[in-house]
Amino acid sequence: MPTQFDPPSGTRDFLAAEIETRDRAFAIIQAVYSGYGFEPLQTPAFERLDVLLGKYGEDGDKLVFKILRRGEHEASGEADLALRYDLTVPLARVAAAYGSQLPSPYKRYAIGPVWRADRPGKGRFREFVQCDLDTLGSLSPMADAEALCAQHDALSALGVGEFSIQLNSRRVLSGLLEVFGVPADLGAGVLISLDKLDKLSTDDVIAELVARGLPTAAAAEMVVTMTAPEAIERIRSVLKPSELGMAGLDEVDGLLSLVGSQIPARRIAFTPRMVRGISYYTGPIWELAAAGVPGSIGSGGRYDHLIEQLGGPVVPATGGSLGIERLLMMLPGSTALRRGRLDVAVTALGEELARQSFALAAAARSAGLRASTYLGASGKLGRQLKWASDQGARWCLIYGAAEDAAGTVTVRDMDSGEQSVVPVGELTGHLTSLGPARPAAG
Amino acid sequence: MPTQFDPPSGTRDFLAAEIETRDRAFAIIQAVYSGYGFEPLQTPAFERLDVLLGKYGEDGDKLVFKILRRGEHEASGEADLALRYDLTVPLARVAAAYGSQLPSPYKRYAIGPVWRADRPGKGRFREFVQCDLDTLGSLSPMADAEALCAQHDALSALGVGEFSIQLNSRRVLSGLLEVFGVPADLGAGVLISLDKLDKLSTDDVIAELVARGLPTAAAAEMVVTMTAPEAIERIRSVLKPSELGMAGLDEVDGLLSLVGSQIPARRIAFTPRMVRGISYYTGPIWELAAAGVPGSIGSGGRYDHLIEQLGGPVVPATGGSLGIERLLMMLPGSTALRRGRLDVAVTALGEELARQSFALAAAARSAGLRASTYLGASGKLGRQLKWASDQGARWCLIYGAAEDAAGTVTVRDMDSGEQSVVPVGELTGHLTSLGPARPAAG
Repeated sequence: MPTQFDPPSGTRDFLAAEIETRDRAFAIIQAVYSGYGFEPLQTPAFERLDVLLGKYGEDGDKLVFKILRRGEHEASGEADLALRYDLTVPLARVAAAYGSQLPSPYKRYAIGPVWRADRPGKGRFREFVQCDLDTLGSLSPMADAEALCAQHDALSALGVGEFSIQLNSRRVLSGLLEVFGVPADLGAGVLISLDKLDKLSTDDVIAELVARGLPTAAAAEMVVTMTAPEAIERIRSVLKPSELGMAGLDEVDGLLSLVGSQIPARRIAFTPRMVRGISYYTGPIWELAAAGVPGSIGSGGRYDHLIEQLGGPVVPATGGSLGIERLLMMLPGSTALRRGRLDVAVTALGEELARQSFALAAAARSAGLRASTYLGASGKLGRQLKWASDQGARWCLIYGAAEDAAGTVTVRDMDSGEQSVVPVGELTGHLTSLGPARPAAG
Repeated sequence: MPTQFDPPSGTRDFLAAEIETRDRAFAIIQAVYSGYGFEPLQTPAFERLDVLLGKYGEDGDKLVFKILRRGEHEASGEADLALRYDLTVPLARVAAAYGSQLPSPYKRYAIGPVWRADRPGKGRFREFVQCDLDTLGSLSPMADAEALCAQHDALSALGVGEFSIQLNSRRVLSGLLEVFGVPADLGAGVLISLDKLDKLSTDDVIAELVARGLPTAAAAEMVVTMTAPEAIERIRSVLKPSELGMAGLDEVDGLLSLVGSQIPARRIAFTPRMVRGISYYTGPIWELAAAGVPGSIGSGGRYDHLIEQLGGPVVPATGGSLGIERLLMMLPGSTALRRGRLDVAVTALGEELARQSFALAAAARSAGLRASTYLGASGKLGRQLKWASDQGARWCLIYGAAEDAAGTVTVRDMDSGEQSVVPVGELTGHLTSLGPARPAAG
């Protein structure tokens, strides 16, 4: 295959079988989100450049696909639009644009592609679908719990066997910074280093913290506390002097209690060392990981100031996002009952019979079946039956000179090879009586 | 609303009600296309620039949204990618890329957005959805007939009351050029002028033809022949000396005969003056128009050399496209049975009852209903019942201190106001027994 016929780097063409798998997965997620009372929102593929830039940090800005100005302005080499980088900034813009026209709280889901000029890699694409749900305008912990449970239920409904949820709170982290005496200006950096406790050795993280300006003893104590086997007990104890930290613990415990009736305890755990890279979270934060899938497949949390920072109204918000591209690559495609392309294949045995053959396919469609005539060049029945078989057709309608003379059509069962002769006028009724063609997919 | 919160010029945000209407329409079209044995194809939003440029003529190239190179190359002001302008060029690329892996003939549909930097106007957008179906690899007139009938059936299924199909053949037009002695180098220009017979006066068109170099007598005779009340008879007669023209008439008559069992005669007419602006058609061409919708809402035809010209394999092709954005704006939204956001609304009457309220919503969801707890700040029952009503909920589950003490939940019918008291453990069964919440949309 010559390179130039590939889709652009980091993007994919999806043929029928993959689309079936993907659409089914997205429909499942949509049904779960909708079951929690979230309503859909669709925004354009691109936004004005100034809506997007400066929202994702310097590194994020570099990954935005920018669109060149057009017409006489094209020569300037400047961009005025950009492909959306996520579904959150467009939500903030919509909240600003439609404000009071939106229900309050505004619970919306969005399932659609986003584009990032990341280095493509295994499971990392430049065009990929995000499945977001967010609640704007509610401070209730039940809004956090809904987002978390909906993400959990969606993964369950997708048939993901083993997955786990790490739950934490920004307030717990702030409390830890407080009790370990981390100066305010070092807080963000310290959290970034702590976030690496999964990947780096404790010694490496301690060294990083020291390099950031933390006294060695404080850095070591912090890391040891957070990685100890009884870390949770130690953290609960160490946070006692911190009002913020205790509020964070209450937040985590309250959320665990709320979701307890829906999320099995084995699947969710308070994970104080889980930091989440993004600084805009203000309350509970969570991350979902599936066994065998590298990285996280979903995340979320409360972000009470972000909508405002993104140019939207002052409104509390919470929500999450499932990124199921990696998951989709691992979903068991084999369990899907693949349907053929056609239920009914109709022969085309000579030009003078074409009109009748074409009408037979229409009759089959009016029985609710997918049907088409043979469109190839061969006039041979054997060749056409092979085509019918390749299409996965359940029945082949054979209409030749003999049938034409008798006003009948021969209905061949493609599985058993049995044939029955049916008057043309009774075909639709006959096909209807035979029942559905194949078990429907899904 | 400050301008900067609008979506970019020519694009739209779709809120829940519009998405419901649009998704239903696209699902109907998809079902019809699929019923003819077409399979889906999805390609990326953008293509390499060289795949797109030079495919749409000079005017088309100007309307392509180009994407700036990234990283160190951004400063060059050059583009390397571009948003897809239609769904046909990506199809040609896919045919070239996957060749023999695709079924033959390859019948594919694609429903998705395309982007054109056209001047936005009423019903003309920069981001709009096209609904294409095409058959690659078949010379059979039944392939043309399938595309035409599928488009017809889709409009019928959408509930478009009055629409009409103009049918013609490129060979008929070539025959006319031949019998009226139009020099080969003037042919394309003459067709462009004839295409204006719907908009301009006959005199103006004759003047244009003369300006293009046609003798006045020939120009006048041509225009009079094509606009006469008995134009079709005159054209059938005048084409007799032209082998090409007669082949075109056979093509049109054959197609009319094939589709006759499915398309009512009043909806389709041989229309010799219908030219279609695009030069790549080689056989039958058609255009669909709906009463009250300006311009065409669909078109199609056979284009046996285009895939090759677009960089794909040498393969005959036929197909069509429905552009239903203008139609969607006119579809009767009122006939849709709009569902509320929720079937079941659950009160949240105090923090200590939150866990139980949240679990009640989960129980309702396990009865297959859309359910959520109240997420606002008010603790007042009246306020929460108003919220339940605003959500369009069929039932409100009231769970207060009394219910908590009794282990029950009060189920309020939001239509009748009747309330019944149900033990918490029996809620799912109770809700299931009440049956579906509202007639489903669609």
